[in-house]
Amino acid sequence: MDFKQHIKEVADYPKEGISFKDITSLMQNGEVYKKSVDELVAYARERGAELIAGPEARGFVVGCPAAYALELGFVPVRKEGKLPRETVRVSYGLEYGTDILTMHKDSIQPGQQVVILDDLLATGGTIEATIKMIEQLGGVVAGIGFLIELDGLGGRERLEGYDVFSLIRYED
Amino acid sequence: MDFKQHIKEVADYPKEGISFKDITSLMQNGEVYKKSVDELVAYARERGAELIAGPEARGFVVGCPAAYALELGFVPVRKEGKLPRETVRVSYGLEYGTDILTMHKDSIQPGQQVVILDDLLATGGTIEATIKMIEQLGGVVAGIGFLIELDGLGGRERLEGYDVFSLIRYED
Repeated sequence: MDFKQHIKEVADYPKEGISFKDITSLMQNGEVYKKSVDELVAYARERGAELIAGPEARGFVVGCPAAYALELGFVPVRKEGKLPRETVRVSYGLEYGTDILTMHKDSIQPGQQVVILDDLLATGGTIEATIKMIEQLGGVVAGIGFLIELDGLGGRERLEGYDVFSLIRYED
Repeated sequence: MDFKQHIKEVADYPKEGISFKDITSLMQNGEVYKKSVDELVAYARERGAELIAGPEARGFVVGCPAAYALELGFVPVRKEGKLPRETVRVSYGLEYGTDILTMHKDSIQPGQQVVILDDLLATGGTIEATIKMIEQLGGVVAGIGFLIELDGLGGRERLEGYDVFSLIRYED
């Protein structure tokens, strides 16, 4: 299936010179949405996933249905102040300033094989922060899967040493 | 299945006197998470859903796997500034001030039967705003399903005239 034709490219969003990859058009088509998730499900299964993790909010869009299909737990990675119980936290760099991501401390068992799923790999900052927290909790990052990968922004290089899969690639 | 035992109640969060219902513990258990989504899937099917909609971010947690299971499209309802193309918008009241929700203008076809799914019904403000947008776009709200319903906060009354389903109820 040619998934790329279902992604809308929006010029100059969120700012001039950026061509935003909009996945909402893909999600609106039930058949295409299911097939794209199924590819990530196959990847997570092949990596021996025991748990799926994903950053809010777009990581939920692919990670939650994949966890459902695999009958695995899903661990949400959230911005600070959104999780009610004790958390681990990592601050990570954005273009301007920093942001903080958190996970519940009891969300992962030591040695558990975790597959991270997200919609898009660009610079890899969010995922790097997610890996740090999973490993801090004793989990093993067994693989990282994306719907979309943007080449040329250093994401794949930043995640060197980890198994990375993407369904759709865009050259910069 | 007794779903309630998998929800963690967190006292005094986000502020004193509030007993927060934390669904992350339910989601962490793959079997329980899947079974809870399956109840919402059965509800959406019974209501003749042609499309699933849900507000970010926790609406994605139940709405996305339900859409996947039904092989239906999923329409994200997002805070302002998150959707890249032309949107409809509704401002709705919060405890302090207002917030704005948006949906893509082309996300719904006139006459389409839409089921809204979310994690929790409290005052119903977010869902009321979501209904307004769906109807503005010509969609029909065929039903509204929640994992959790908190009694005594006026949510069900606010959604009068619509079909409302919830899996787990808490009395105030």
